[in-house]
Amino acid sequence: MTAADAYIELVRRSKELGVINSCAGVLSWDHQTYMPPKGGALRGEQMAFLASLAHQKFTDPKVGELLAAVESSDLVRDPEADAAANARELRRAYDRATKIPQALVEELARVTTEAQQVWEQAKKKNDYASFRPLLEQVVKLKRQEADAVGFKEHPYNALIEEYEPGTTVAELKTLFAGLTAELSPLVKKIVAASKQPDKGVLEREFPVDRQKVFAEAAAVAIGFDFGAGRLDTTAHPFCSGFGPGDCRITTRYNPRFFNEAFFGVLHETGHAMYEQGLPAEHFGTPLGVACSFGIHESQSRLWENQVGRGRPFWEHFFPRLRQTFPAALADVSLDTFYFAINEVKPSLIRVEADEATYNLHIALRFELELALLSGDLTTADLPGAWAERFEALFGLKIPDDARGCLQDIHWSFGGIGYFPTYTLGNLYAAQLMDAARRELGSALGDDFRRGEFGRLKGWLGTHIHRHGQRFRAGELCRRATGAPLSAKPFLSYLSEKFGTLYGVC
Amino acid sequence: MTAADAYIELVRRSKELGVINSCAGVLSWDHQTYMPPKGGALRGEQMAFLASLAHQKFTDPKVGELLAAVESSDLVRDPEADAAANARELRRAYDRATKIPQALVEELARVTTEAQQVWEQAKKKNDYASFRPLLEQVVKLKRQEADAVGFKEHPYNALIEEYEPGTTVAELKTLFAGLTAELSPLVKKIVAASKQPDKGVLEREFPVDRQKVFAEAAAVAIGFDFGAGRLDTTAHPFCSGFGPGDCRITTRYNPRFFNEAFFGVLHETGHAMYEQGLPAEHFGTPLGVACSFGIHESQSRLWENQVGRGRPFWEHFFPRLRQTFPAALADVSLDTFYFAINEVKPSLIRVEADEATYNLHIALRFELELALLSGDLTTADLPGAWAERFEALFGLKIPDDARGCLQDIHWSFGGIGYFPTYTLGNLYAAQLMDAARRELGSALGDDFRRGEFGRLKGWLGTHIHRHGQRFRAGELCRRATGAPLSAKPFLSYLSEKFGTLYGVC
Repeated sequence: MTAADAYIELVRRSKELGVINSCAGVLSWDHQTYMPPKGGALRGEQMAFLASLAHQKFTDPKVGELLAAVESSDLVRDPEADAAANARELRRAYDRATKIPQALVEELARVTTEAQQVWEQAKKKNDYASFRPLLEQVVKLKRQEADAVGFKEHPYNALIEEYEPGTTVAELKTLFAGLTAELSPLVKKIVAASKQPDKGVLEREFPVDRQKVFAEAAAVAIGFDFGAGRLDTTAHPFCSGFGPGDCRITTRYNPRFFNEAFFGVLHETGHAMYEQGLPAEHFGTPLGVACSFGIHESQSRLWENQVGRGRPFWEHFFPRLRQTFPAALADVSLDTFYFAINEVKPSLIRVEADEATYNLHIALRFELELALLSGDLTTADLPGAWAERFEALFGLKIPDDARGCLQDIHWSFGGIGYFPTYTLGNLYAAQLMDAARRELGSALGDDFRRGEFGRLKGWLGTHIHRHGQRFRAGELCRRATGAPLSAKPFLSYLSEKFGTLYGVC
Repeated sequence: MTAADAYIELVRRSKELGVINSCAGVLSWDHQTYMPPKGGALRGEQMAFLASLAHQKFTDPKVGELLAAVESSDLVRDPEADAAANARELRRAYDRATKIPQALVEELARVTTEAQQVWEQAKKKNDYASFRPLLEQVVKLKRQEADAVGFKEHPYNALIEEYEPGTTVAELKTLFAGLTAELSPLVKKIVAASKQPDKGVLEREFPVDRQKVFAEAAAVAIGFDFGAGRLDTTAHPFCSGFGPGDCRITTRYNPRFFNEAFFGVLHETGHAMYEQGLPAEHFGTPLGVACSFGIHESQSRLWENQVGRGRPFWEHFFPRLRQTFPAALADVSLDTFYFAINEVKPSLIRVEADEATYNLHIALRFELELALLSGDLTTADLPGAWAERFEALFGLKIPDDARGCLQDIHWSFGGIGYFPTYTLGNLYAAQLMDAARRELGSALGDDFRRGEFGRLKGWLGTHIHRHGQRFRAGELCRRATGAPLSAKPFLSYLSEKFGTLYGVC
């Protein structure tokens, strides 16, 4: 078999896996949207079958042979060539999949399934003690996973690789140190400012049916293709791109709080436009898959915050919003509304956090994950460590574990290493927006004021979406923005925006 | 390997196929309910992958070996034992799947996919000429399929076996001859009767949102478990049972015609309660699958017509219906309404036909299918043959092919042999209802008048649902009703019901 034939067969197998995983994507979406309650057991069997089929097909030694044949050929001489990029990312995934013993995969599946159920109850009952033994097992198994995969310097590097290939603990530590050093004083100044927003205007009656219409219209305006997607309602919002022509997002509506559904929809639409912008011809291969979790999050955060919480956006949408909700907003000015949706206030819950405090929540989780994984922190000491560190960062006391270390689902599903990608997303978003503004000029703001977002979407398509995994996140950022990732654009954006709003800095 | 081990392995493989097919079931349901328009290409790939995987797994020679080991063992000595029934039906399906050459399977898939698209347009444009070459190919390929499978007496026997194992052309000819002989004079008397219903009361304004609530309430009342199912809206109503705990039905709403959604929901609920009543522990094996298409249709027709178009049912529901649609029904009496929903009138379209004329539509199709398959009728002569035979049966002239031989989708998807199962369903329904009445007594009508349907559902569960494919349809009927299938109960039911309503007979 020639290297060219090996590559063709490798791509065929990869695309077949893409189809299998897309079947699982539809089943999972249905599970969270429309499946009747008693359908859970069958759905579990279906998902287990597809996962096992995909695992079995991907870890077939033949895949390793095909990869080796491609890697030792001229096909990969140019590292940016299709074959080189596909081989690089398939190699990473293949090594990971074959290095982790099947017994560990099954044990992780078993423990995390149980841990998620126990966590849900533990959070409801504020009962960390019941969750602790499960968390203990999760940490132990994820440490075993890191050992099986292999790592340099810190076992955490083996875990973050699953979400953000190429990123390291050392790099993240530097980023978080820089962020924390600047964010803490900024937040303090904002809290102490005499000018404060009236968040109450967002907590009036916003009838759900009209919220739906307004949010869908905004999603269409920024560029979501409803011919190739849907918006549904779920308890936990998400975006799921099955493949070319079918990407679905969800949100949840709160009739007494405008932000929840609307900014949720902008966020998921950002994710969805990335999925809709991936090159269809590469579906099922790394070139047709999003670059990393951090880059994915940059797309959601860019539309949710950089665009959707900006003044030009609301210069267009606020008059329409007031027409849609006359009872709630007749006495509210654009300035009042704009200030309200940008309230900064240290709070206990990550998912409700504002742009300025959000990354402090992540910094906390990153520190604690590192310590748990290295063994420097025991699960018994976790609640105390959380409370102590939270107070230092936010100046707030944790009233209970439910609003402390039990608030997030991530550790229960084994997602150690996931949290930092949220912060990476925020930083990439700011740096990308900065580059787009430089390149497209002040006309970009004029676009937004007219309700036009096509040029920004086009810029992101060109610089991010169409590349799939051709470049790793760091390189993609350098190419799109001319510089490696830095916290600086994000921090400048924050101090300029909130300095003006709150009259500080 | 012992025969017991062979049976265990055979069941494991069969259940795995059940899971694969249930995945395809979810994808197909999603295709028809919520998939965005551009998702079609990917969905096609997903369905093709799953179909090919299932075919490949089922036609594995190992399955044949396992079957042979079970068949030659004591496990099948008692023909009603689990292993005997499962082996019998797996053998039938396995022989069929392995006898039909892969090339023919693929050619049929290709031609019927195209034929369905062409048919849809041809029907819209009343253009039989454009559909004829495709129909010609379908008939030719189905004839090849019959030759590959093998048959006695008539190639049609090989085709109907897919839908109604054990039924033959000879048997169907006798049934249809008996039916036609009695139905034609009955319908003539009804048409000539001086007493006629006022169908107009059903063609008033029935707001769709209230139709939904009312239909769902009726589905719950007769026994559909919404904890294990859903009701959605689609262009073409259907029922899809994925497996234990998840069976979904659909309907379509016409704001100016009450019957369409309501009786459609009762019909699909009848199908769904069968699916929900199959033994979960046998999921994926023949014992966990419905007996035949005819028996399936008997369950939908029983609830739609025998129960849902009966007077006791409406003694309970009509006051509630009038409360739900006061504007439409304030001036309508129960008797007027009951007569209207039971209007008998020869008409062109099968799916709109009443209980008395419906089987004449099927008789026509059965005759023409036989002639097409045997070569006695060419596709060129089909429209003429249809028109001539239709006029003989209904006393009506066909105004165009769109309302003649182009009206049904079945031939375009290769479903030659399917139509007779509709009539079998009507006959089984009448015979089953007759038996249930004899066994449960006049209290059954009192149940319905109180809006209670549990005892009838229980009787069907005991005599039909729980058996899966343990018995073939004929034997199931004998066991449930004490007699082989006959048109007599159906004909008695018709002449009694319509004799009273129209004052004839």
